[in-house]
Amino acid sequence: MTITDVVSRLREHDDFIIITHIRPDGDTVGSGAALCNALQKAGKRAYLYDNPQFPDCYPWLSDPFVAPQGYEPKFAVAVDLAEEKMFPKGFSGPVDLCIDHHPSNSHYAIETYLEPDKASCGEIVMKVVKELCGKLEKDLADQLYVAVATDTGCFVYGNTTGDTLRAAAELCDAGASNTVLNKILFRTSSKARLLLESMIFSSLRYYHGGKTVFAIVTNDMLTKAGATEKDCNDIASLPGRVEGAATSAVIKEVDANHCKISLRTNGMVNANAVCKKFGGGGHAMASGCSMDKSCEEAAAMLADAIAEVIE
Amino acid sequence: MTITDVVSRLREHDDFIIITHIRPDGDTVGSGAALCNALQKAGKRAYLYDNPQFPDCYPWLSDPFVAPQGYEPKFAVAVDLAEEKMFPKGFSGPVDLCIDHHPSNSHYAIETYLEPDKASCGEIVMKVVKELCGKLEKDLADQLYVAVATDTGCFVYGNTTGDTLRAAAELCDAGASNTVLNKILFRTSSKARLLLESMIFSSLRYYHGGKTVFAIVTNDMLTKAGATEKDCNDIASLPGRVEGAATSAVIKEVDANHCKISLRTNGMVNANAVCKKFGGGGHAMASGCSMDKSCEEAAAMLADAIAEVIE
Repeated sequence: MTITDVVSRLREHDDFIIITHIRPDGDTVGSGAALCNALQKAGKRAYLYDNPQFPDCYPWLSDPFVAPQGYEPKFAVAVDLAEEKMFPKGFSGPVDLCIDHHPSNSHYAIETYLEPDKASCGEIVMKVVKELCGKLEKDLADQLYVAVATDTGCFVYGNTTGDTLRAAAELCDAGASNTVLNKILFRTSSKARLLLESMIFSSLRYYHGGKTVFAIVTNDMLTKAGATEKDCNDIASLPGRVEGAATSAVIKEVDANHCKISLRTNGMVNANAVCKKFGGGGHAMASGCSMDKSCEEAAAMLADAIAEVIE
Repeated sequence: MTITDVVSRLREHDDFIIITHIRPDGDTVGSGAALCNALQKAGKRAYLYDNPQFPDCYPWLSDPFVAPQGYEPKFAVAVDLAEEKMFPKGFSGPVDLCIDHHPSNSHYAIETYLEPDKASCGEIVMKVVKELCGKLEKDLADQLYVAVATDTGCFVYGNTTGDTLRAAAELCDAGASNTVLNKILFRTSSKARLLLESMIFSSLRYYHGGKTVFAIVTNDMLTKAGATEKDCNDIASLPGRVEGAATSAVIKEVDANHCKISLRTNGMVNANAVCKKFGGGGHAMASGCSMDKSCEEAAAMLADAIAEVIE
């Protein structure tokens, strides 16, 4: 499929429902809202599937486009949604068209347009929207800016390329309120989140001369901070911020005898190999595992396993 | 002056010394290193003035270009340096050419090339370097990326425009190691900094239904965190990160009866007007003042002054 094929398919059909993924983030909601908005501007009926987790994300972005009760769609388009297990709660398919950037896309949809080298799905939807509407109006630029900026952590993550930055430049030129959106997306935290970060950074554990850093996150800490799931976004990256940390882990208590571990490395240690020892796995620089141990026991075992690899 | 004039001036002269500003940041050092490097590539003798504060900043960026002992320059170029009081320690001028982006530039140099709408001086030096060298090699792209990314907080600050993002895109295309540089510049903090942030976020004071948030930073906190001046970069912005904060201040202890205040607002409260009441001032959204009071007394007085403006 080409972008032109995607746009043809959108022009041929009507009564669209746009599907975002479970645990929605800025890329899926921004891409979905932009696509929905562009279809409406092009004279189509189009709504977002009412992902029950929208309120945990950016309700101001999704709410204006959520399908009304009783809406009967005829064509489903999934955005930023890699595989069926990522369907939002209550949705079971089928999906007519999928627009995505995940290399792991399982081609569950009848047709799939995939650009696996793109940092965000928003960059792809931007091309669709431009061809569909002939131009980028400010509201579309705002929605797409959320998508592109979120998936790159405001252009700081390693997935950011020249193309990503050029797409963002074009969105700013089209009127995207990048200052306002950046404040909301990247420069605002809940009190609970800031308290949780305080507890994490004041209780880090150092091993191997400071090259290995662990954060233990207990249920007691979450309670004291008043933190819920949505305050824990990307906490796995926090201990890796310490100067000198080559390997870092967040050890999150499930209960007294169970914990979940997120391991991040700078590539010197293979995170996948370490996590495999405990029945987990993932990528070389980011992996995870579960242990039927207390957090303290898990920390000791994990530090030993990393020491073996370092030596 | 045009960029072509700037390049002509550089081609006409030799034995350059590049001047960076006091309390150097990534923009002045990155711009200076890139200009120096480009002049050397163009067959000129060129070095950075040995700003004694380089070691507090990014020594890996400045060290390769610092002038050797006894170097006798014939042409001084200042980068990102707005006025004479920003001269680095030990330097007293004169400056032959200044390349800058500060609207407040005082035109202290014999010739000045100023683009006050640019987010970073790096964006201007990039144009000079491209014309001087005919292309952007990877090492130049890395140096300029530091300049552009630092002055925009990795493209998150309100000064970021489409032009800034396009410049960054071009630098990435030219081979800038944005992932590695972003990790160093934006995703690494000293232990002392993280401890200090922990103390700040766990002791915030809320007023006016949470719309006003203060952080008190005492000398005792700095000692406990092991923090020095360089660990305090941009702490004035920290309390403003809390959800719902419209006005925020950092009240920094000087001694038991003296403190310095940095006030930030979202524009609802005029920070300049509030600080003027205490003999200070600045901008509408960011101002400062000193008080001959303890931090506790200052917090109470400042909260009252803000309350008057809110009502």
